[in-house]
Amino acid sequence: MAETTTLTDLFMDSLKDILFAERQILKALPKMARAATSTDLKTAIQSHRDQTEGQIERLEQIFASMDMAPRGKHCPAIVGILEEGQEILDEYAGSPALDAGIIASAQAVEHYEIVRYGTLATWADLLGLTDASKLLAATLAEEEKSDADLSKLAKARINTKAMAKAAA
Amino acid sequence: MAETTTLTDLFMDSLKDILFAERQILKALPKMARAATSTDLKTAIQSHRDQTEGQIERLEQIFASMDMAPRGKHCPAIVGILEEGQEILDEYAGSPALDAGIIASAQAVEHYEIVRYGTLATWADLLGLTDASKLLAATLAEEEKSDADLSKLAKARINTKAMAKAAA
Repeated sequence: MAETTTLTDLFMDSLKDILFAERQILKALPKMARAATSTDLKTAIQSHRDQTEGQIERLEQIFASMDMAPRGKHCPAIVGILEEGQEILDEYAGSPALDAGIIASAQAVEHYEIVRYGTLATWADLLGLTDASKLLAATLAEEEKSDADLSKLAKARINTKAMAKAAA
Repeated sequence: MAETTTLTDLFMDSLKDILFAERQILKALPKMARAATSTDLKTAIQSHRDQTEGQIERLEQIFASMDMAPRGKHCPAIVGILEEGQEILDEYAGSPALDAGIIASAQAVEHYEIVRYGTLATWADLLGLTDASKLLAATLAEEEKSDADLSKLAKARINTKAMAKAAA
């Protein structure tokens, strides 16, 4: 069995992994947005949630182009990442550091997506899947922008607010 | 309880999380290096393993500077990421796509480290922990370089080899 697996199999397996991950992320982001106290942070996470819907549609297009049903595959990585995010919501509820923790959790999600979409886009290029490559690159660019926006929020305002309250 | 938690608590919790993660990574990398078929990839992973030892020492220095024992905290994210890496080793053993899969797994590990060290370095700056900030930034730079090196390997040679064999 293993002797016959190729980069195409690996590409498909990874597509299923990220599809499962995106569907989990879609469910988790609203919880983070509700818990955030900063309006800017709520807006950033809500915007990421809306983008996630479009990213799932792009994945479904790729599945369709390969005549495959858009079925996800259990992805222990995103389950673990989101579990840590939930721990932050539970353990830092009411803390002035909650928003800083939510940003960190959201960035951990972004980086998982960044690394998987980066890999998938490379493989699509190598496999000559031009349309898939464009769709994956479009999502990758969105993820990188979301991550950069969250870094700005973390550095500019929210962490500082957490410190000020902590010192008060 | 929650009312009294601050950014310092969040920083310490996250330090414990990444310490646990680094120790798990130290155990997992040799398995990936042994399984890799490309000499360049084996060398890259071995080099990351050696760096990980130094990164753990830096974390231990930070714990010492804060008069805390270097105890890790269970990190479900890295457990899930490494579980997916092990799945690749099992499912793609003997496949020409194995090295491409190993690179993807190693990059997922790198990106988890990149996001956590990025967050920790920002928080150390905000907390005025100058020495910790320098140590964290040094590790972050190493992780970013390792990730870039793996991307080069993925694009240049190993995936191409996987395709050539798959097409043969």
